[in-house]
Amino acid sequence: MSPTAEVLNYINGEWRPPSAAECLDVLNPATAEVLGHVPLGATAEVAQAAAAAAQAFPDWRRTPAVERVQYLFRLKQLLEASFEDLSRSITLECGKTLDESRAEMRRAIENVEIACGIPQLMQGYNSEDIASGIDETMIRQPVGVSAIICPFNFPGMIPFWFMPYALACGNPVIVKPSERVPLTMQAVFRQLEQCRFPPGVVNLVNGARQAVDALLDHPAVRAVSFVGSTPVARHVYARAAASGKRAQCQGGAKNAVVVMPDAEMDMATRIIADSAFGCAGQRCLAVSLVITVADARPIFNELICDAAATRVVGSGLEAGVQMGPLISAASKARTESLIGRGLEEGAQLAVDGRAARISGYENGFFVRPTVLLDLPPQGEVAQTEIFGPVLGMIHVDTLDEALALINAAQVGNQASLFTASGTAARRFRYEAQAGNIGINIGVAAPMAFFPFSGWKESFFGDLHGQGLDAVEFFTQKKVVIERWPKEWARKF
Amino acid sequence: MSPTAEVLNYINGEWRPPSAAECLDVLNPATAEVLGHVPLGATAEVAQAAAAAAQAFPDWRRTPAVERVQYLFRLKQLLEASFEDLSRSITLECGKTLDESRAEMRRAIENVEIACGIPQLMQGYNSEDIASGIDETMIRQPVGVSAIICPFNFPGMIPFWFMPYALACGNPVIVKPSERVPLTMQAVFRQLEQCRFPPGVVNLVNGARQAVDALLDHPAVRAVSFVGSTPVARHVYARAAASGKRAQCQGGAKNAVVVMPDAEMDMATRIIADSAFGCAGQRCLAVSLVITVADARPIFNELICDAAATRVVGSGLEAGVQMGPLISAASKARTESLIGRGLEEGAQLAVDGRAARISGYENGFFVRPTVLLDLPPQGEVAQTEIFGPVLGMIHVDTLDEALALINAAQVGNQASLFTASGTAARRFRYEAQAGNIGINIGVAAPMAFFPFSGWKESFFGDLHGQGLDAVEFFTQKKVVIERWPKEWARKF
Amino acid sequence: MSPTAEVLNYINGEWRPPSAAECLDVLNPATAEVLGHVPLGATAEVAQAAAAAAQAFPDWRRTPAVERVQYLFRLKQLLEASFEDLSRSITLECGKTLDESRAEMRRAIENVEIACGIPQLMQGYNSEDIASGIDETMIRQPVGVSAIICPFNFPGMIPFWFMPYALACGNPVIVKPSERVPLTMQAVFRQLEQCRFPPGVVNLVNGARQAVDALLDHPAVRAVSFVGSTPVARHVYARAAASGKRAQCQGGAKNAVVVMPDAEMDMATRIIADSAFGCAGQRCLAVSLVITVADARPIFNELICDAAATRVVGSGLEAGVQMGPLISAASKARTESLIGRGLEEGAQLAVDGRAARISGYENGFFVRPTVLLDLPPQGEVAQTEIFGPVLGMIHVDTLDEALALINAAQVGNQASLFTASGTAARRFRYEAQAGNIGINIGVAAPMAFFPFSGWKESFFGDLHGQGLDAVEFFTQKKVVIERWPKEWARKF
Amino acid sequence: MSPTAEVLNYINGEWRPPSAAECLDVLNPATAEVLGHVPLGATAEVAQAAAAAAQAFPDWRRTPAVERVQYLFRLKQLLEASFEDLSRSITLECGKTLDESRAEMRRAIENVEIACGIPQLMQGYNSEDIASGIDETMIRQPVGVSAIICPFNFPGMIPFWFMPYALACGNPVIVKPSERVPLTMQAVFRQLEQCRFPPGVVNLVNGARQAVDALLDHPAVRAVSFVGSTPVARHVYARAAASGKRAQCQGGAKNAVVVMPDAEMDMATRIIADSAFGCAGQRCLAVSLVITVADARPIFNELICDAAATRVVGSGLEAGVQMGPLISAASKARTESLIGRGLEEGAQLAVDGRAARISGYENGFFVRPTVLLDLPPQGEVAQTEIFGPVLGMIHVDTLDEALALINAAQVGNQASLFTASGTAARRFRYEAQAGNIGINIGVAAPMAFFPFSGWKESFFGDLHGQGLDAVEFFTQKKVVIERWPKEWARKF
Repeated sequence: MSPTAEVLNYINGEWRPPSAAECLDVLNPATAEVLGHVPLGATAEVAQAAAAAAQAFPDWRRTPAVERVQYLFRLKQLLEASFEDLSRSITLECGKTLDESRAEMRRAIENVEIACGIPQLMQGYNSEDIASGIDETMIRQPVGVSAIICPFNFPGMIPFWFMPYALACGNPVIVKPSERVPLTMQAVFRQLEQCRFPPGVVNLVNGARQAVDALLDHPAVRAVSFVGSTPVARHVYARAAASGKRAQCQGGAKNAVVVMPDAEMDMATRIIADSAFGCAGQRCLAVSLVITVADARPIFNELICDAAATRVVGSGLEAGVQMGPLISAASKARTESLIGRGLEEGAQLAVDGRAARISGYENGFFVRPTVLLDLPPQGEVAQTEIFGPVLGMIHVDTLDEALALINAAQVGNQASLFTASGTAARRFRYEAQAGNIGINIGVAAPMAFFPFSGWKESFFGDLHGQGLDAVEFFTQKKVVIERWPKEWARKF
Repeated sequence: MSPTAEVLNYINGEWRPPSAAECLDVLNPATAEVLGHVPLGATAEVAQAAAAAAQAFPDWRRTPAVERVQYLFRLKQLLEASFEDLSRSITLECGKTLDESRAEMRRAIENVEIACGIPQLMQGYNSEDIASGIDETMIRQPVGVSAIICPFNFPGMIPFWFMPYALACGNPVIVKPSERVPLTMQAVFRQLEQCRFPPGVVNLVNGARQAVDALLDHPAVRAVSFVGSTPVARHVYARAAASGKRAQCQGGAKNAVVVMPDAEMDMATRIIADSAFGCAGQRCLAVSLVITVADARPIFNELICDAAATRVVGSGLEAGVQMGPLISAASKARTESLIGRGLEEGAQLAVDGRAARISGYENGFFVRPTVLLDLPPQGEVAQTEIFGPVLGMIHVDTLDEALALINAAQVGNQASLFTASGTAARRFRYEAQAGNIGINIGVAAPMAFFPFSGWKESFFGDLHGQGLDAVEFFTQKKVVIERWPKEWARKF
Repeated sequence: MSPTAEVLNYINGEWRPPSAAECLDVLNPATAEVLGHVPLGATAEVAQAAAAAAQAFPDWRRTPAVERVQYLFRLKQLLEASFEDLSRSITLECGKTLDESRAEMRRAIENVEIACGIPQLMQGYNSEDIASGIDETMIRQPVGVSAIICPFNFPGMIPFWFMPYALACGNPVIVKPSERVPLTMQAVFRQLEQCRFPPGVVNLVNGARQAVDALLDHPAVRAVSFVGSTPVARHVYARAAASGKRAQCQGGAKNAVVVMPDAEMDMATRIIADSAFGCAGQRCLAVSLVITVADARPIFNELICDAAATRVVGSGLEAGVQMGPLISAASKARTESLIGRGLEEGAQLAVDGRAARISGYENGFFVRPTVLLDLPPQGEVAQTEIFGPVLGMIHVDTLDEALALINAAQVGNQASLFTASGTAARRFRYEAQAGNIGINIGVAAPMAFFPFSGWKESFFGDLHGQGLDAVEFFTQKKVVIERWPKEWARKF
Repeated sequence: MSPTAEVLNYINGEWRPPSAAECLDVLNPATAEVLGHVPLGATAEVAQAAAAAAQAFPDWRRTPAVERVQYLFRLKQLLEASFEDLSRSITLECGKTLDESRAEMRRAIENVEIACGIPQLMQGYNSEDIASGIDETMIRQPVGVSAIICPFNFPGMIPFWFMPYALACGNPVIVKPSERVPLTMQAVFRQLEQCRFPPGVVNLVNGARQAVDALLDHPAVRAVSFVGSTPVARHVYARAAASGKRAQCQGGAKNAVVVMPDAEMDMATRIIADSAFGCAGQRCLAVSLVITVADARPIFNELICDAAATRVVGSGLEAGVQMGPLISAASKARTESLIGRGLEEGAQLAVDGRAARISGYENGFFVRPTVLLDLPPQGEVAQTEIFGPVLGMIHVDTLDEALALINAAQVGNQASLFTASGTAARRFRYEAQAGNIGINIGVAAPMAFFPFSGWKESFFGDLHGQGLDAVEFFTQKKVVIERWPKEWARKF
């Protein structure tokens, strides 16, 4: 990738330069170097892409599913072949470590694999003789042009929670990456181009909020998949609904992990540190609160502080580095400000990651792992998604209290428990009000054959991304009732 | 039922008189007699019901599904036992014939029957070894308090598209009937009372638009099911979304039937007349446009005009009557006005149902079956849901043209075809953009084990009422990922 | 029930006296009193029933599923109404306590409830455009006359693992109860008679092995469901296969429970005692081996011996009785002989239930709870299903050893684990080679919406009883591929 | 492929020469040239393969499904890359045309594609709170070593109806090709070798009946999939059952197509000729009887005789050839003898394909397309599967009579109808007793995501090959019931 790539749109089977004059720099967050320029204000491009997609729809829908998945089998091969390049692209524009980027691309490919099963997964159902001589059949048909609006933190993976399913089900797609990390999708679409989808079936439009609203308002767009923060998710959900679309909108999180005294502490520490500080805390499934129960406190606190303090921070491209920078200077400033707010609220700063200086990367947006002890559960910081490597520690005496804290939150993306007890695990999975539950798991990211199930204000809608939910979302059901009366038969 | 029943609310397991001073008369549309008074302005009652339901939720959710369905098995028995009374109640307040009311109650009961299968239908799915030693499970848990907002035309059935599933899945419900036909739900809730649901699990709130908005805005309400006109459906969908709820909103229709020259004309006429004039045309699946193809025109037009002219109109309670009144004087006036508008647009009035006079029911809101020939397809009447016994006739030369007309419409609830040809049927089911397709069927109403699948502006949302869609809608998915590492086992 | 009931057959909608001269006494196992006489040698009756069923098949199959389940809804009501009578009948002829009989009937009814969901469960699946313009549909159609051959230990329940599903799917059935306990099915068929099934749809033939072979060989019988001992199951499976039928044959068991040192011992004892001694050990899910791990031995052994020694044995009809007699004198003799064999093999007799004398029931076939300590795992007794209240204790040092013992067995019906550890539970469920796994559960009997999943020589076949497996077993799939080429359409 | 290839076995990850001294020649049926030698008497090899497979099972089962399918994704790529070579191998040893071989390989690959979806398809199901605090889960685990026994007519495809699913579900497989066409599997296993399955997971054993019986009797083999003639299928089913295995056994056929007078005759003729004479009639879905209804007779008879007479017969490797030879001299002799038998029974020989002489292929086993008019429906030829290019014509007056003829047959693999009438089609699909129904389709071969559904004596067992049935067949269900009582939790 050249250092200052021109970010193009891919519309109707061809690469097109953006029409908008106004641009945004795409930065390498480890160096603050400019990697490219992304256009803002893409209303015209949205209209073009929507028109191309709408035109491509009838033929794509008529292409048998067994043929449509051949494109995805090819895509899997191409993504495997370009695996390292794509991973490197993620690290460059997003900052995470190469291993994290590879894990991200692996998840992306898994969704392609599952979408290859569409001929089976998309089947309808049917009944003979709902009344004597009358049959009923439910057929799944594609819903139409689908827009996929993506956040910055997984530039390679999140489009794949939706795109392979939408395509396999017979829908043209328009992908809008985050304007902060548009480059990986440039590379992915070069692979899509090699798959030789018919023109208009896969489209890429770059832009920011104006592009989002254009997609939400465009009448040809029938379905909207969104991942981002809760306020924007709510906006997207309401605006899509107001224009009559179906929508599935994932929002933010504030994920707590409960550490019971019977947990194996070394392993819990390692896993929780990976969850809290992996991707610099910029994951919607990152743990950002630890609730220690009873005797778990002293030992776990000591271990986690040690893990935080010794985590190797640096450029994601360098070997041995365990954590990269935040996405932007603003993000760094906000994170450091929220650490300060936590101290004001009464927390103690056990490990201070502010004012990080990474040799050779002095311009990078680094914040080191931070641990706030005794964070007040009702305070602002305990309720706010920081999206940085900041772990707040809360202590309670019982699992009941831990569950009460978790269930009082506005959001409910993930909740995790570390324990050796089957009883504690059952209670937790039964009671915890979050869509993704981990038992001795730090990042409870569902496989591609399970839905990504946020709850409460972490999700707006009913059908989720991935797997069967995606099939339901990207199809509409048609019910056919047939009567072929004997009397109407010609007499043979 | 006493002539002027007091319409009560059923909240937290008890009947409560409404607090609102303002009331609306409930009329018998065949006689214009006052049957009762329904309160308006039910904001306080909505709050009480929502609070009661929210309080009932945890225990109801914990009640095993096999026990929850015992209430529904009992409900089926009670509805069977009160079948005639309930049917009579529908006819009294809604006007349709007793046989139509019985068919309505039969459909209501079928939904109870299917919801009895929840222990099987509500199962989640699971995988061993998503990675070595790690298992993943998807569990369906109830979504929470569910509001069901109903129209006037099926006072007995439409609540049952949603209520049995919501309850069986573990959700408390709040039903708001149409303020024009609140009496049947009074009778149904007397049966529900006998089922001895725990207090707060089933709630009935009467009211009008103010009650609707209160339900849409109340934070405890998590899911909204609505059936009504397209503009209101759109409002409900957008407002529910704006407050972060999941919603499924069925709107209006303008259903066309295509008559091919090879159709058996006598039977087609009988079925289409039943569809167009049954329930006085006040069904969202009623056929209101006939598109005759090629040679089908002369013979079908003659037959349908004859069927329209000879249909027996009168009080639904009287034996031999085939069609009752419209719901209200306003509805009658609007229908007659739209007939006139059709004439202005150039249609010919083959059968004129205006100014109907039914002996003994001079005050009833009757409009007789009406047939408009050569209705201009692009005109207002051909695009407007009349919700009255008015059939517009359009003629084309080919099935292609017929499909083009159907697919140009804003709405897409039902499309039907009468033919002997397997090829025509396949093309129709493949091409027609409507959620409910009938082949030699007049009212393609899906059975309870199929979704009620409106398309386009006939529906806002993704999951429909009835069957598996209802189970998806009234549950939220929780994904659990578990690791129980060997290392953590105590050494035995 | 009169003291010496005549056991009739129910064929083609009428009760018929048996033709066979030879008879067997039906005894009350608590008193050895004769309750009735059951005919042997029912070849003629099998032929009549098969003919009646075959004749009833076409119409029953054409009866819409929504109508077929109405018979089952009625059956549920009738079984609820006769619940106490049926439970008493079970106790009378089978000996178990009234509470055990009630639990048995509850399970029977649950299967009726689940079979009421057939309209949904029996749906086929379908795909549009498997190639351009070609559609494919899978339809489930009933398989034909189904024979259900039952053992003595659950005279009320086991027919219901199959019958409601077979009927709901559109198949006529022939039930053959055990010749030792034919009376409960007499009572059940009186309820079925009241359901007014069409003649030939439900048939009851009494008899013994000759009747079984006649069913296996009759060409009109298409599906065989069997529950009994492993040798007979193997015979039935092979003979049914040799005549080209599908068959599902449940055999015997030797179920072990593993008690870990971290189990809550009081509760484990209570549950395991119920499993081992409930129904006098005559359940295919009864625990008959306890494997104590490490420190669990001393405390558990003491508790279980105490529970065995103090269990109240007597007539199942008497209040407070916890365990009834064995089914027959032969069964009592065999059980006592196997206890002796265990002692010869080196086990120690901690609690001796032989030579039981129950005051007032001196002729009953009672064996009291028996505990054999240090039973050699490789001995005959540890490998033999006793089907009596005899618990063998084995000790090992690790969970690995316990699993190795379980997995070395020829049979694999159930395996259970008592523990507090999530890790131990996961290992057990992952490794134990048995179809029904209990974690802190004594009798892991699947609900009606799960298959009853024996493994190894506890089951021959692939599809099990109950739920979705039963639907698969009682239907055959028909795949329809349709092309309706445009060219073939008449030109309209 | 060298002209006289040594046919090896592939056992435990290595190619092994056969131990048996006795061999059979593998012939090119177009030339009678020897292509290779296949060993007979493979008892020792079966034992080795079963042992290797049994040893490989535990680790293969523990390999996560998402990893297992990576082998299949690779296999798909390799099969695509070797597509032409494999197709040529089929034609060489089996005789069919190259296009027919290509179609066969395409179907093989489609099964690999569907089996790639195992992570989704193999999921179990689960319920919370079957009673308060008790959860139940059904897990699918692989059934164990699976034997796949194949016929000669689809040397490339039929192993793939089973193998990819068995593997993906976690089972090791042993494939035994027909001893007449062992070479294509040699080539396929060279691709499998490149996939680098762990040793013992995929095994190939060549041999004849002795090998079959060794597989049926070997205790380590848990599941048997067989395709062949009805008598052998029955033998395999009974013998597998007698040794306690699950089995699915496809047998022979005698498929009829009904031609209605309203069928488009040119297209019907083309499709039916392809079905009857394609693969020289050696397909279990080949049409071998045509039943003309009413006026369809004269025109269809003329057209089909013309199609038969003009079909280009020759070596499958030559361009333009439409039909190749039969598999063997014996097959040719038997076919010609059955033609003679038909004449004796009274049929008229409209087109005589006996004594075919193909220039340049004088030693080939050719029989040309043959048409027998007025074949007596009750005669031997009308009931016998010829497995050659012989079409028998029967005439009836009504569809009812046609259905009666079809339903009187002992077998029921496929039945087809050519018509323009939706009513005729519905009656046919509802009434015809065959597992694969074609409407205007000549070879109703189900896609890989549908079961291959023979009925009556065309199939023994209940679960079929391909898709979801294969998943059911190659897994066994384990039901887990868990209780984690609060009382057992340690007090935190």
